[in-house]
This record gives sequence, C-alpha cells and structure tokens, in this order.
Amino acid sequence: MAKHCVSASPSSTPLLKDELDIVIPTIRNLDFLEMWRPFFQPYHLIIVQDGDPSKVIKVPEGFDYELYNRNDINKILGPKASCISFKDSACRCFGYMVSKKKYIYTIDDDCFVAKDPTGKEINALEQHIKNLLCPSTPFFFNTLYDPYRDGADFVRGYPFSLREGVPTAVSHGLWLNIPDYDAPTQLVKPLERNTRYVDAVMTIPKGTLFPMCGMNLAFDRELIGPAMYFGLMGDGQPIGRYDDMWAGWCIKVICDHLGLGVKTGLPYIWHSKASNPFVNLKKEYKGIYWQEELIPFFQSVALPKECTSVQKCYLELSKQVKAKLGKVDDYFNKLADAMIIWIEAWDDLNPSTPTAAKLPNGSSK
Amino acid sequence: MAKHCVSASPSSTPLLKDELDIVIPTIRNLDFLEMWRPFFQPYHLIIVQDGDPSKVIKVPEGFDYELYNRNDINKILGPKASCISFKDSACRCFGYMVSKKKYIYTIDDDCFVAKDPTGKEINALEQHIKNLLCPSTPFFFNTLYDPYRDGADFVRGYPFSLREGVPTAVSHGLWLNIPDYDAPTQLVKPLERNTRYVDAVMTIPKGTLFPMCGMNLAFDRELIGPAMYFGLMGDGQPIGRYDDMWAGWCIKVICDHLGLGVKTGLPYIWHSKASNPFVNLKKEYKGIYWQEELIPFFQSVALPKECTSVQKCYLELSKQVKAKLGKVDDYFNKLADAMIIWIEAWDDLNPSTPTAAKLPNGSSK
Repeated sequence: MAKHCVSASPSSTPLLKDELDIVIPTIRNLDFLEMWRPFFQPYHLIIVQDGDPSKVIKVPEGFDYELYNRNDINKILGPKASCISFKDSACRCFGYMVSKKKYIYTIDDDCFVAKDPTGKEINALEQHIKNLLCPSTPFFFNTLYDPYRDGADFVRGYPFSLREGVPTAVSHGLWLNIPDYDAPTQLVKPLERNTRYVDAVMTIPKGTLFPMCGMNLAFDRELIGPAMYFGLMGDGQPIGRYDDMWAGWCIKVICDHLGLGVKTGLPYIWHSKASNPFVNLKKEYKGIYWQEELIPFFQSVALPKECTSVQKCYLELSKQVKAKLGKVDDYFNKLADAMIIWIEAWDDLNPSTPTAAKLPNGSSK
Repeated sequence: MAKHCVSASPSSTPLLKDELDIVIPTIRNLDFLEMWRPFFQPYHLIIVQDGDPSKVIKVPEGFDYELYNRNDINKILGPKASCISFKDSACRCFGYMVSKKKYIYTIDDDCFVAKDPTGKEINALEQHIKNLLCPSTPFFFNTLYDPYRDGADFVRGYPFSLREGVPTAVSHGLWLNIPDYDAPTQLVKPLERNTRYVDAVMTIPKGTLFPMCGMNLAFDRELIGPAMYFGLMGDGQPIGRYDDMWAGWCIKVICDHLGLGVKTGLPYIWHSKASNPFVNLKKEYKGIYWQEELIPFFQSVALPKECTSVQKCYLELSKQVKAKLGKVDDYFNKLADAMIIWIEAWDDLNPSTPTAAKLPNGSSK
C-alpha cells in the first residue's frame, strides 16, 4: 500500500515554515503579494530586483523579506556575478544561491491565486510541499497518477520493488488562464485561455525531457539546487525566455542520473497577463532554432558514474555543452563557462554543501 | 499550432461506425449492454464466450453481434486454438483476431457508463476514438497534457519538429469507483474507491512501461493488432490476471520501436464490482513474483531494425522471451511458443495484412 506521506497540516502551523524560502524576481512593486498573504506571510521571501537598481520596489507590509538588486549581486559575487543574467527573470537563480533553506518556491509577480473547480482558493505552496515530501516514481508509469495521494495507489501490474519510489527533487506547477505558450503559438492563438483544471500530479518518467516553466516551481535545494541555474539570458545575450527551459533540461538529466524524481501537475496558479508576443518572438527566435539541436543533445547525455553529486554532474554537463553545442553557436561556449562560474559561486556561498554532497541513498563519496 | 484532429460528430453519425468492433469477453448474460445502448448500438459486437460452451448467453435485443464460444474457437483455429486462453478473460484476444475492422474497443461486462463531474454520462467509445484519431507525442512531455485537445496546445519549449506527433496505436481508458488494484492492495484497502476524475489524456513517453488494463481499452488493429495477444492464462496455466499486463508490455516496446503512440487517461467507465481478492491472490501470486524479472526484461528489449512490421517485432520478441525468460520458469517457454502460434493464426485469419505490413510512414519493405 502506498504511504500517504504528508498529513494535512493543522492550520496553525504552515508546512516547512522555517525550511523554505520564496524567491521572486521582479521589476515592480509587489502588490501581487496581497493576494498571497494568507499563504505566503509565514514564509521568508527572497526578492531579486531586476533592472535599474536605483528604483525602489515596494513590498506590502508584514512580509519578512530580503531584497537584492544588481549592485548587491555584484558586491556579493564580485567577478562571478557575470553568471547571473540581467534584464531577464533568469536573475532569480541568484535567490536560490543565497538562500540557506532546504526548499525553494519561486513564482512570477504576475501570478495570482487560482481557484479549484469548487471555487476554493488554491494554496499552491502547500501542494508543492506535499509534492516534494512525497516520493516520485520515475521508473514505471502509474495510470492513476500519483500513487501517494489520498484515494490513489499503485495499480495492478505495478512492480512491488518500485513502490517505495525515490526522493522528489522538483515540483513543477501549472497555470490557469494564460498558458505558457511560445511566441508563435501566442501569435496564432491570442485568445486561448487554459480553463482545464486537471486534478493530477505525476512523475515525469526517467529518460523523458519536459519543458520546465519557472513561473510556479518548487525544488529541494539540497538535492538539486546547484543544477537549478537559469543560464545567460537577457541583457547582452542573444536569447531570452529559455532560462527555465535550460534549467529544466539540465535538472532532468541530472535527476535521472542520480535517481531523483521530478513531478508535474498540481498546483495551479492564475497567470494574469500574456506577455507581448512580438517582444517574445525577438527573444525566442534563436532558442526555437537551437532547441532542435539542444533536445537531441540532452536526450543523449550520459553522465559517468563518478558523477556522484549534483555539482560533479553539472560540471561534467558543462564540459559536454562546450564539446557538443559549442559548434552550434559560440553562445554555448560562453554558457558552458558560466555554468562553471555558477558552481564556483554556489560553493562559495554554500560551503556546507561540498562538491561531493551526500546522495539520498548514502551512496556517494 | 496543434491541429485539433477530430471534430465533434454530428449526433446522427457515430464516429467510425463501420470501422470499429466492440469485443466483450463474458460468461454471463449481457444485461450490462442496456446501459450502453445509446453509445454501442450502432456498432458491431464480437462476444467471446468463456467457460461452458453449452451455456446460452443472452444479448439484449437490437444489438448487432457475432458470438464465439470455445467450440467455435476450436473449430476456427484447429490446433492453433491452443494459443487462446480458457476460463480467463484473456480469451478476448480471439475477438481481435476474427475482427475485420480497423479499430477495436474492448470492455468488461462489469463496466458501466460513468458520469463526468457535471453529471453528464460519458460516451467512452467516442473519447477513445478521438484519442486514436489524434496523434501521440512520445518523444517529449507536454505539461498541458494532450496538445491536440480543444483549448490546449504545445507549451513554450516544446520542439517544433516534434509537433506533428506520431500515429496513435492504443488508447487506455480508466475506471471510476473500483480501481484496478492487485490482490494485496485490494486486501489492504477493501473500501478504497476511485472518485478522482482527472480530465486529461496523455501520451506515455517512449521508453516508459505502464500497466495496461484490458477493462476499457481501444486500439488500431492495423497498426498494432498482432501484438495485442493476451497470453496464456487461466485453465491449465500457473497464472491469471496478467493477460492485459503482458499485452501492455509487448505492445509498448513494439510501439516504441515502430514509432507509434500509446495514450492513457480519459475516458472513464464505472467499474461496478471488485473481484474476490482471495481468488485474485491465487491467480496473481506467481505474476507478482515473476513481474520483478519481466519489467527489467521489457525495459531492456532491443528490436533490430529489420523488424519493420508488428508481426516481425512480435516473433523477435517471442525469441527473446524464450532466451531470457525461459530460465525464470518453463511457463515462459510455453508462452513464447504460443506467441508464435498466435501470429500464425492471426496471419491465417488476416491474409490481407502480411508479415511485412506497411508502416505508417511508408518506410517498410
């Protein structure tokens, strides 16, 4: 019988209150937090201010937060700040690095509280925490979706030896209203809205890549944090809007290698506003083209068994990026270098999680 | 933009009326068809009567059907009838073989019409047909599920070269009320009912195995029929309740090899009655044990590129079953032989679909 691993929390104690930071990249006042107050106020926020550092970002009263602008990032990382993107929401990954907590939830500032089909407001963070605290099942598909949810289990024919599952490293949430479409699809379907509430959480199988969106995303920093790098995007770079995709491909091959799980599905947030498709097309067009080479690359990445920590995996991946994608465009040589700088900066700020970090099953070192 | 490939049919013309057979294995009068009358009556039924052939099975008035009992099967197949199980619902695959239609829907006689969350009766067959007529996307995961459904599409980061999809060979539907649990789970959770309606259809990714249940299943006979063999179960065999699982593992590795898609999710049927868990345990216990060796076997099956038709793939698979599973138990030697007999019988009854059948992309021969 599948264990149901998270009990409903007594309403007085928010789950993981002292073990989770909420990371928000922004260029504007954070009025959107008003709507999230009942769910976010108990948690600590890390706000990464993008763009002009002299602008003052207003945060609603009563939230506990730290805020970093570009000057702060430059001061803290010195020359290594080059790995953090500017004028792109990719800058959010700086927040992952300065956090000292075990878990991260990151959300965009145009995302509001969604309602479930009964009209109840969805506590997205609570669902992400449940997803992260329950195991994943990447080695075999369960047709009734997450076997650890109440009212569900493993179906007939599911091997018993796989029912313990593996630790979940990433929980990828979805969006009602404005779907996360690329610019060409936005242009073709400007009026399409996502109204379908799919009441499911599932593990993305081992060996399968997916498009990870950074709008509504949670992860276990200790298990996968050093691979959650959002790349070089925005100011001075030939590409944008592939920051979360890049991170998603990297974390997936590393999770597959280390035996960690990635879940997608619930919770939904309400995505309020479509970004400008013409601007998006300009940011994306090289990505749309390069992606056709990136996917086969990531599908064929093999990490040697010596790669027993996330950092080792990530450094090996940067080598392979340089060797195999450098010829697609020189951008990937720069990106591969930035991946190394990112890991160095991560280890500087997180000296307690050394390169040979302990694996969940204790098999490392 | 993803094409929406099936328009709502005008209510006067049921979809694929002359191209689909409904296969029902049974030992009792088919009163359950009354509830399905509005949906099934336009279609032809193939009833495979299991058990005592002298028993008369009553079929409600107004249905167009043919019925085969064990005597008929023996007469039609002669010595090759040995490949068709007796006293087990695995006998249903005889119906797949005698059909002359392009599509098959198979359903158990304890399955009734389910209702969607709005209270509307679900036309399961219509949803299966939609699933089969829309492409599948096995090479990359789409986080908004089936991109070909109304109101959905491929999300940002989905490679454009993969958006045409591949032909769908199998549509696996689910069950409300009594979930399809194995005997140990039934014993531990006798009162669990599936009440969660998940409004999704998805492709099971390439390289991922799943537990295929035969209760509510549709497929394209021309694309995958010869692999839809439900094995040797029931009377005289050491195992039961693994007929559909066996078929599911076989069809999945063959679909993966041939570039065909397998979908799961909608539609739901209402599964009325749990079978006896003690009886089930007796049927299943060897399967539960063997399964631990079968899954790694199927996960590592490699079919050579010369296998360009379903029949060739299936014969190659039978060879590998004998070579690698024969040592697990002599049963698998018998099963491997039965797999060959099944293909011979299939080809006898379906001379127009020769061994070197045309592949969907025309690449065979």
